[in-house]
Amino acid sequence: MTEVAVVGAAGYAGAEAVRLVLGHPRLSLTAVTSAADEGKTVSAVYPSLAGMTDLVYSAPNVDEIAAEAKVALLAVPHTAALELVPGLLERGVTVIDLSADYRLADAAVYEAWYDTAHSSPELLAEAVFGLPELDRSRLPGARLVACPGCYPTATTLAALPALESGVAIGRRLVVDAKSGVSGAGRGLSASTHFVSVNESIAPYKVGGTHRHTPEIEQALSTAAGRSISVIFTPHLVPMSRGLLSTVYVDVEEGFTTAEAVELYRGRYHKEPFVHVYGAGEMPSTGDVRGSNRAAIGVAVDERTHTLVAACAIDNLVKGAAGQAIQCLNAVLGYSETEGFERPGPVV
Amino acid sequence: MTEVAVVGAAGYAGAEAVRLVLGHPRLSLTAVTSAADEGKTVSAVYPSLAGMTDLVYSAPNVDEIAAEAKVALLAVPHTAALELVPGLLERGVTVIDLSADYRLADAAVYEAWYDTAHSSPELLAEAVFGLPELDRSRLPGARLVACPGCYPTATTLAALPALESGVAIGRRLVVDAKSGVSGAGRGLSASTHFVSVNESIAPYKVGGTHRHTPEIEQALSTAAGRSISVIFTPHLVPMSRGLLSTVYVDVEEGFTTAEAVELYRGRYHKEPFVHVYGAGEMPSTGDVRGSNRAAIGVAVDERTHTLVAACAIDNLVKGAAGQAIQCLNAVLGYSETEGFERPGPVV
Amino acid sequence: MTEVAVVGAAGYAGAEAVRLVLGHPRLSLTAVTSAADEGKTVSAVYPSLAGMTDLVYSAPNVDEIAAEAKVALLAVPHTAALELVPGLLERGVTVIDLSADYRLADAAVYEAWYDTAHSSPELLAEAVFGLPELDRSRLPGARLVACPGCYPTATTLAALPALESGVAIGRRLVVDAKSGVSGAGRGLSASTHFVSVNESIAPYKVGGTHRHTPEIEQALSTAAGRSISVIFTPHLVPMSRGLLSTVYVDVEEGFTTAEAVELYRGRYHKEPFVHVYGAGEMPSTGDVRGSNRAAIGVAVDERTHTLVAACAIDNLVKGAAGQAIQCLNAVLGYSETEGFERPGPVV
Amino acid sequence: MTEVAVVGAAGYAGAEAVRLVLGHPRLSLTAVTSAADEGKTVSAVYPSLAGMTDLVYSAPNVDEIAAEAKVALLAVPHTAALELVPGLLERGVTVIDLSADYRLADAAVYEAWYDTAHSSPELLAEAVFGLPELDRSRLPGARLVACPGCYPTATTLAALPALESGVAIGRRLVVDAKSGVSGAGRGLSASTHFVSVNESIAPYKVGGTHRHTPEIEQALSTAAGRSISVIFTPHLVPMSRGLLSTVYVDVEEGFTTAEAVELYRGRYHKEPFVHVYGAGEMPSTGDVRGSNRAAIGVAVDERTHTLVAACAIDNLVKGAAGQAIQCLNAVLGYSETEGFERPGPVV
Repeated sequence: MTEVAVVGAAGYAGAEAVRLVLGHPRLSLTAVTSAADEGKTVSAVYPSLAGMTDLVYSAPNVDEIAAEAKVALLAVPHTAALELVPGLLERGVTVIDLSADYRLADAAVYEAWYDTAHSSPELLAEAVFGLPELDRSRLPGARLVACPGCYPTATTLAALPALESGVAIGRRLVVDAKSGVSGAGRGLSASTHFVSVNESIAPYKVGGTHRHTPEIEQALSTAAGRSISVIFTPHLVPMSRGLLSTVYVDVEEGFTTAEAVELYRGRYHKEPFVHVYGAGEMPSTGDVRGSNRAAIGVAVDERTHTLVAACAIDNLVKGAAGQAIQCLNAVLGYSETEGFERPGPVV
Repeated sequence: MTEVAVVGAAGYAGAEAVRLVLGHPRLSLTAVTSAADEGKTVSAVYPSLAGMTDLVYSAPNVDEIAAEAKVALLAVPHTAALELVPGLLERGVTVIDLSADYRLADAAVYEAWYDTAHSSPELLAEAVFGLPELDRSRLPGARLVACPGCYPTATTLAALPALESGVAIGRRLVVDAKSGVSGAGRGLSASTHFVSVNESIAPYKVGGTHRHTPEIEQALSTAAGRSISVIFTPHLVPMSRGLLSTVYVDVEEGFTTAEAVELYRGRYHKEPFVHVYGAGEMPSTGDVRGSNRAAIGVAVDERTHTLVAACAIDNLVKGAAGQAIQCLNAVLGYSETEGFERPGPVV
Repeated sequence: MTEVAVVGAAGYAGAEAVRLVLGHPRLSLTAVTSAADEGKTVSAVYPSLAGMTDLVYSAPNVDEIAAEAKVALLAVPHTAALELVPGLLERGVTVIDLSADYRLADAAVYEAWYDTAHSSPELLAEAVFGLPELDRSRLPGARLVACPGCYPTATTLAALPALESGVAIGRRLVVDAKSGVSGAGRGLSASTHFVSVNESIAPYKVGGTHRHTPEIEQALSTAAGRSISVIFTPHLVPMSRGLLSTVYVDVEEGFTTAEAVELYRGRYHKEPFVHVYGAGEMPSTGDVRGSNRAAIGVAVDERTHTLVAACAIDNLVKGAAGQAIQCLNAVLGYSETEGFERPGPVV
Repeated sequence: MTEVAVVGAAGYAGAEAVRLVLGHPRLSLTAVTSAADEGKTVSAVYPSLAGMTDLVYSAPNVDEIAAEAKVALLAVPHTAALELVPGLLERGVTVIDLSADYRLADAAVYEAWYDTAHSSPELLAEAVFGLPELDRSRLPGARLVACPGCYPTATTLAALPALESGVAIGRRLVVDAKSGVSGAGRGLSASTHFVSVNESIAPYKVGGTHRHTPEIEQALSTAAGRSISVIFTPHLVPMSRGLLSTVYVDVEEGFTTAEAVELYRGRYHKEPFVHVYGAGEMPSTGDVRGSNRAAIGVAVDERTHTLVAACAIDNLVKGAAGQAIQCLNAVLGYSETEGFERPGPVV
């Protein structure tokens, strides 16, 4: 058993990480932290976890975490990880970070998009980008894994085979993505009030202003082996969970849907968490609710030579906590599927 | 490993049973049947089960089921079980029945409410009512278990301690219950069209006409040791899963909320799947989404000497497939909690 | 044209009042106030009103309101009306009050339930309870109308014919009511976060603690001509608008559904805003979305001698702003249906 | 008063047309037809219209329609209009057609996309495309108006100023659109079951296969004055009403969001039903619920030289019945805003 602390465990992604650690046969949960909910039991905040753990939220403290845990799973806002990661690494704690702080290889890009200085740029080279389907080679034994956000995960998986194979031509992709409301976090705001969200869909941060943009471009450029730009538009959808990224990729005239399906299936057939649909089939986010899987549909608009790929994930699982556990499995030398054997509710 | 076939496995409750059998460490799934979806894979109908099983729906056939399975879990409409159960028992198959066909001890009551003859009344005395919290004594080794419906389960758990203890006075209870749409089944009807259900709540089968009424009365009368009548009003709520039963019980003047909480906690503290909330707290169906737990809140309106108890369950788990597995565990001598160790999604 | 100011016009009920005044052929809107949204245009806060008015929210000021308006429609929290009403009346402004401050005839009851002193108890005798279907005789020319809350409106309409006629026996009713989230207001709280509410139903303020209780009892006692108590349980439902009250009334043995329908239709057939459904039919809140109508279904459980009546309203229209306009029409001597001629969206 | 019959009045768009005709000061409703619901009252099918009309659905009959109505508003599936329109025109009835049958100028394109022969191609030249904001010059006095579908309406309004002005370069646009479930109609299918749709988003008809594609291309090519192709992907969103089209347009380097907002506001400032948002603001479908308005937000991704425009409409109003009435107003020489003076519910 490997001891794990979940830091930022009262947010939705953190709580989902708590659930996954509790259900994992080779991990044990030693601590949960939350500055805002310090002193409360986990089940007081998440009644659905009643009976599963007696842990009480404590304020995050590097020494206390290191005293009991081999691994810290961080589900904190950006800049909060900057304050914790160096101390955790110094104390020998492996860090799986869900924040944005160590995802971008170039500190200058981070500073431009997050409008803040990066206090430990020397760790960026060591940080492993935690998307196993893109590159899992550096995960075994890694000390610091920076898992991509929900939008970059779905978008990269949707575009990866087309970019990697050279089927995608050009340097620019349209990415139109749609997220459930849990992606906006547990904090209160007018935009997450039930009456505001319900029965309505809206784009937000339009025109290339969402902070996941450079992360998406970094991952896609890695896949393509050349610089790729995206026009990325996120939308908020009236549902609690789920994320769909619809990606538009220019291809050569004559490339067909059948070839695209074959390409994607070839690329992903060994991936335990990626499921490529047949020609004419498209995923819904309901297909992956509560699951770590990504479901991908692909079609080519032969009139306009455009490949359209749609990837559905659960934003809190493959888009956050599940991916963290998948990466942690790889770090520890476990099978990546460990802890994901049991299906979630069917509807 | 005990071999299990799920009959009627393409409906919501049946599919949830498939999920639970697949995730159970001591059960193995040998067959799934569905007349309507014969020939399709489970994951074609339920993409959320992709990668979990390769089974294909077959038409239900007693000989084929008996050839491979020790246990048949029936998630079929009423009267369909009548056609299967005698043959399965003859062939030595243990039956856990989610239909209404063997729940009522008195064949005449069945015939009156279901407007059809009962073709195997001789089995009613043997059939064990599958609500372990009410009475688990006859479950070990039982050949035929008739699990109660979703409304009777939540309602009985809500009223049980008050009736059993004698705190409830009178012979009549008001039961106002609210169910998510999956309770109406996967069949198509105007009343389950998204646009009809969404943003709307409505009562249905008002005035004591819902067929769960005699089942509720049978269970409550058992608990009370005297004949109990209910005025039962079900409502359809715009959500996929979840069921809440709010029960109104006359009590003696002077009985307090604190006493009620103590009574309920005392009655249920050894029950692994029942969680009694503290004074001033009430359950939401979200608290038990995907879980086999029942969450109960209780308060006494001291002005009117009425105990109000609300019980929230997931209609497809504790209200159907989860209860079936809990009962099956008891039949087989396993711990009732076997297969339920891992929490479901937190929101 | 009668000039109207809407005070508290940035909340949901206030904004709905703005909409109704704007659409009314004999009312003109002179001012909208909101302490929190002062300086914003109405359409900045409610984009759905874009193009309908150029008014800007001002801070509420009695002198400014009185300078331009003959009528002030108050959609403010309790105690806020206490501060405004005496000054408005002194300045000759007619007040239609949606707050709780002048609904209860007895100041001591108000003080007990709202835990605050009543600063103008001398106005309570003058204040007219604004439920025209219960008693419209005092509305014409009234200076101060106190409209009932959403729960009391639906509940009173559901029980009124049974109480008034003497069909209801006993002194106690069970009232199980269900409201959409707009009833909780536009303020931010954990309980109105989309992810908390969505896919979940829950009771709240159980055990006779909701402040609408005395208002319901006052109205029902008026109808019955004797003291009536209620056991009232409100529930929060995952929908934006709509309220359903299900009421359980003891009746004599032998009273039938057909008689109940006839009783209700007889009582309400002249009411323009009350629609009684036929035997076997029940209303959904979707039936009255955006409308000032109340839809009522009634059935008798002849086994238990209980009349079950369900009344569906739109909590923001018949439960708030629509009722205010209906009352204002009566005060001004207009037809009560003035301004309600056009139907709202069909689904 | 102009007499209007609504043909296909039991579908969602038809019923919304009924509502709008009933609320229109210069139109009177003479007949409602529905083959499926013949003999039922309108309010039996749409309880929200109770009290607004006593009309009963009849089977559609050209002679009967012509006997009473000057105008027939057709809300029928494609090919059904082919059977009705010639006869109606012969009898002197003006036709406002919401079906696809007369939208495409070229019969061969119709036949290719709808896989059926066009039986009255001679009427195509006369049919006026009913999108007033694109071209209203031929509407006054027109005998046959073919209103565009919901997706073409929102998409054309989103792209029009960029194409017409020459700001858009290239010949290809990405159109990523999202619709509420009422767009799928009142018919029953697995894909509109509440449990399928709820808590899930999915693309459908991906790869340029949706039949609205040629209509969008025809409208955009008209606007641009050159041939325009679209890659169009529709999505189904868990909400009853509302449609959002997000359009991606290549522009020259250096074109800014401020210039785009100015361009759009200049183009639309005289349009009563188009509302262009300021820089940094984006519409939600909730902003236009129940309204005939289109709300448009525009932003330029200056890094990639892409203009992103999002247009929100109510699919049943500006995307169907409202647009039909707007066009009818223009045909009859009324103000286009006639009948739309009153705002709908604010949330």
